[in-house]
Amino acid sequence: MMISPICVFIFSLVLSSSYADVQDFCVADYTAPQGPAGYSCKDPAKVTADDFVYSGLRISGNTSNIHKFGFVPAVVTQFPGINGLGVSVARTDLGVGGVIPFHTHRGATEILIVAEGSSVLGAFVDSNNKVYMKSMSKGDCMVFPRGLLHFAVNQGDTPALMYASLSSENPGLDALETQLFKNDLATDLIHKTTLLDKSQIRKLKRLLGGTN
Amino acid sequence: MMISPICVFIFSLVLSSSYADVQDFCVADYTAPQGPAGYSCKDPAKVTADDFVYSGLRISGNTSNIHKFGFVPAVVTQFPGINGLGVSVARTDLGVGGVIPFHTHRGATEILIVAEGSSVLGAFVDSNNKVYMKSMSKGDCMVFPRGLLHFAVNQGDTPALMYASLSSENPGLDALETQLFKNDLATDLIHKTTLLDKSQIRKLKRLLGGTN
Amino acid sequence: MMISPICVFIFSLVLSSSYADVQDFCVADYTAPQGPAGYSCKDPAKVTADDFVYSGLRISGNTSNIHKFGFVPAVVTQFPGINGLGVSVARTDLGVGGVIPFHTHRGATEILIVAEGSSVLGAFVDSNNKVYMKSMSKGDCMVFPRGLLHFAVNQGDTPALMYASLSSENPGLDALETQLFKNDLATDLIHKTTLLDKSQIRKLKRLLGGTN
Amino acid sequence: MMISPICVFIFSLVLSSSYADVQDFCVADYTAPQGPAGYSCKDPAKVTADDFVYSGLRISGNTSNIHKFGFVPAVVTQFPGINGLGVSVARTDLGVGGVIPFHTHRGATEILIVAEGSSVLGAFVDSNNKVYMKSMSKGDCMVFPRGLLHFAVNQGDTPALMYASLSSENPGLDALETQLFKNDLATDLIHKTTLLDKSQIRKLKRLLGGTN
Amino acid sequence: MMISPICVFIFSLVLSSSYADVQDFCVADYTAPQGPAGYSCKDPAKVTADDFVYSGLRISGNTSNIHKFGFVPAVVTQFPGINGLGVSVARTDLGVGGVIPFHTHRGATEILIVAEGSSVLGAFVDSNNKVYMKSMSKGDCMVFPRGLLHFAVNQGDTPALMYASLSSENPGLDALETQLFKNDLATDLIHKTTLLDKSQIRKLKRLLGGTN
Amino acid sequence: MMISPICVFIFSLVLSSSYADVQDFCVADYTAPQGPAGYSCKDPAKVTADDFVYSGLRISGNTSNIHKFGFVPAVVTQFPGINGLGVSVARTDLGVGGVIPFHTHRGATEILIVAEGSSVLGAFVDSNNKVYMKSMSKGDCMVFPRGLLHFAVNQGDTPALMYASLSSENPGLDALETQLFKNDLATDLIHKTTLLDKSQIRKLKRLLGGTN
Repeated sequence: MMISPICVFIFSLVLSSSYADVQDFCVADYTAPQGPAGYSCKDPAKVTADDFVYSGLRISGNTSNIHKFGFVPAVVTQFPGINGLGVSVARTDLGVGGVIPFHTHRGATEILIVAEGSSVLGAFVDSNNKVYMKSMSKGDCMVFPRGLLHFAVNQGDTPALMYASLSSENPGLDALETQLFKNDLATDLIHKTTLLDKSQIRKLKRLLGGTN
Repeated sequence: MMISPICVFIFSLVLSSSYADVQDFCVADYTAPQGPAGYSCKDPAKVTADDFVYSGLRISGNTSNIHKFGFVPAVVTQFPGINGLGVSVARTDLGVGGVIPFHTHRGATEILIVAEGSSVLGAFVDSNNKVYMKSMSKGDCMVFPRGLLHFAVNQGDTPALMYASLSSENPGLDALETQLFKNDLATDLIHKTTLLDKSQIRKLKRLLGGTN
Repeated sequence: MMISPICVFIFSLVLSSSYADVQDFCVADYTAPQGPAGYSCKDPAKVTADDFVYSGLRISGNTSNIHKFGFVPAVVTQFPGINGLGVSVARTDLGVGGVIPFHTHRGATEILIVAEGSSVLGAFVDSNNKVYMKSMSKGDCMVFPRGLLHFAVNQGDTPALMYASLSSENPGLDALETQLFKNDLATDLIHKTTLLDKSQIRKLKRLLGGTN
Repeated sequence: MMISPICVFIFSLVLSSSYADVQDFCVADYTAPQGPAGYSCKDPAKVTADDFVYSGLRISGNTSNIHKFGFVPAVVTQFPGINGLGVSVARTDLGVGGVIPFHTHRGATEILIVAEGSSVLGAFVDSNNKVYMKSMSKGDCMVFPRGLLHFAVNQGDTPALMYASLSSENPGLDALETQLFKNDLATDLIHKTTLLDKSQIRKLKRLLGGTN
Repeated sequence: MMISPICVFIFSLVLSSSYADVQDFCVADYTAPQGPAGYSCKDPAKVTADDFVYSGLRISGNTSNIHKFGFVPAVVTQFPGINGLGVSVARTDLGVGGVIPFHTHRGATEILIVAEGSSVLGAFVDSNNKVYMKSMSKGDCMVFPRGLLHFAVNQGDTPALMYASLSSENPGLDALETQLFKNDLATDLIHKTTLLDKSQIRKLKRLLGGTN
Repeated sequence: MMISPICVFIFSLVLSSSYADVQDFCVADYTAPQGPAGYSCKDPAKVTADDFVYSGLRISGNTSNIHKFGFVPAVVTQFPGINGLGVSVARTDLGVGGVIPFHTHRGATEILIVAEGSSVLGAFVDSNNKVYMKSMSKGDCMVFPRGLLHFAVNQGDTPALMYASLSSENPGLDALETQLFKNDLATDLIHKTTLLDKSQIRKLKRLLGGTN
């Protein structure tokens, strides 16, 4: 096939000009309006490779807490390159005996990979209240289907490091204990709508900083 | 415009035959395989208007229970005509002082309409643990955004009747009390992952029929 | 389990700070740009419970019209809390003998609940022109699958009150009579594309305020 | 870079075996159950290039009818390769003066390309009853947004050939005239719900083969 | 049915005012922020029929290039009326012996219709590296399932004109030759990650304007 | 609050029976029909926790190949619990100097986490042929937006272990080298549609097992 310089010139014009302003991604512009589908897009001319790489997962979250639970998300509020793309990740560290407390992620599904650790118990509860629970070794992964309550416990004798994949760029982490007790919802209302004793509710409100 | 009988005949053939087997709906066939998008479709030749009408909401669910809470869903497991259509409804009755317990609907959004009742308190909790709560009069409606924990309390002096619209044909109803206490999840694990006292957990397991 | 005050302090920091700016909803800001997925989100700091409750359905729409048809929507243009959530509701009142005229909701599915009324006839037409029609008693609901033409008639001897659930936060209501006759589309074009007689078209244009 | 034969052998195994049974498509198996997302998939081992090519658009649909309107769809009921892929096409021919009657495609959007013809008028009506109408020359295309009523008229002095792109693999074609008049829906009900005169309704029922 | 003037007046108010600001479409406003779901919407009051018609496909793209390949897209960056609607079209012209080079459309599916031309070879490769290839006559169409590599060759003795339907309003056109060779990606990296020889890479970089 | 045993009994019935057959997940039944949305669901009565845990990622894929690239997917074809849930994961190992070859995942987005390794170069190319490339340290993650060509190179002096999160339960891995050269696509056609020299094509066909 012969290729003349003029053809090449014209050819380049054709292929390059048609899509001069096509966007393949929508890097979050945190200063512009946000809509139901996510943040506004950063000007493509200002997008760089840095927008697509996140370094926050290098270090564990602090595990010096009641659950020995460190959590570092890489969701759209920190990681602008995933805006609108429907997936995010997070790093979770558990000390020996540590737990990821019972929680949901609104409508998102999670796959949890045990990267370090000898024995991590994962569990979720379905809408018939049935529990699905299994002990994972290093390298195992477990799926927590969308919207279901789940938790994990490090039953091994070494710290555990896990990576979570989530089917949303902004899945939230709604832990029961903070949802119920770390706000000003009246003790009587919590009592009526959960059947928990008022003394129990007041005890956990004190622990977690709730009032009323 | 002149219309000859032959034209009419041909015209009828054209418009009627092209889409002879188009399906506009996929009524659930409960006997065939189910997939991620819902039930298999009933043979269109056997579909009748009855598949699209549901009468289960005529009567209240039983409110003679601890919460004075009656609940009758019209979701795809009872109402075959909504299969695959992404919306369902339910009827909720609350006696005087009755409550809809704290629950989620996996990833679905709910709009709750107060059809009867003088004062119904609705509330949900967001991912920052902030509570959004408001008293509704007859005719008011409140939205509980997808996947968030919510509840309602009939604070009026007459029974309340509510209709819920849900953004899924099968939203589930995951009440915290049954998710936590109405199964065989070990008391120690619930304790560690919710911070609830073991005595509290055991008390509610007894009440709700849980073990372990 | 021992819980030291310092642990609690650290723990609170961990769980509360990670998602400080997570949004669980996107309340419509009617003054900012709108996109294909809906309105821009209101500043979360200014969102209150009021944004999630709508009182417009307390009172019937006016039924003193040709169809004895009152209609009050709770869609995203009035109800900011449902922005982006894919579901809306509406209240419909029909006097004795009143009708909901033949219409579609673009691509949305509707479930219509008869809250008051003794006999409401509901019907839709599928793509093979087959009619699915059934009389509903108080408490019954009927689904009109997405995008199909449908109507309802109050055949009882008392007014009817209905609630509609719709699988879109902005479903529209495209009644045939107004779509065809309440605008400036030329009579000749309507005639050619619907086969209706020109005299019929002109008569309904006069009735409904159309021209041409 | 040196490449040893053994490396090549191992490498081939790695890349080829991991996804031995991945499916990139789901060709319709018309004999197996259908679900809300489409037909069941044909056994991939039996899929050939023929499943992805459709020849039905080579010839015009018959235009010897009242509208001089020929229509040949390439939707999933004829074209198995598009099952589940969310797009379909169709060929439309209009004789001189011919029209595509007023219709909707449930929730689908259509882009209509004028491949042959000197002047085709396209129009749609929005939810405020406003008409958007424009004459197209050869090569022009017009979009009819999802679910809206639209039509077209060949105003040129030569036949027109158009290709339609639709945002659904099974969009339907719900023409008003056949939806209203080509079935057994009672004349009185049509009258009440459309405001059309009974004599008009009966006339078109006779023309189009409806009863009642 | 009697229709009094007052009824008509009231009736008109009811149906017209309820949805005064409903939007059925979201015409692209190229000057406002863009989000993951597309461009912001143009003020509906300024939208006209012109926004929904595109004339760019009247004339072929330039085929005086190495592939004898002319390409004119009607995607959302040129055609504001399709913003958010999930479908676009394009015109492709191939001289005798011309080719559409090997490319993908990110996640979009394409249906290619041969409007003019006697023999166009279409082909795609699935994830098992199997090739699906077939020669098309005038009027045939072929589907290239979402995200798969595909190409076409005009094997007939006359130019070919094709229309493409795409399941995205902004599908991109990622040709392998330009993706690999028309940028500054280091020759050594391309060599390692494609197994192509460095001399081959350098030759095509020179041809297509790449560096490094 | 007094709770009588009878109330408890009735209450239990209400909450447990309403959703007796609700499914919160759709575990893949590999023996039943597959549809566009995924595999048919396994009988819920036979689902166990084992369906939600996958152990295949414990061990590296074989890296004794030309790219020193080991790849172990946990997609729906091996991991039945993720069927229909829109997310999957994979493990990738790279020897020193190893590469993940240039590839796409049809329409899926990938986030790649560097779990072990000192320096991994990640890169993707957008539709304007611009390259986004960055070196990652241990703990960094990079997003490759949906459908775009990307690769990675282990530039560190130790092996690298990475986990990929993908926004599809079945993303495929379409490497350019195997897509082009590991099948029977004619050398002349590859030449014309990629501009690669025939000698180059034949050399890689020999290496990778292609013919023609």
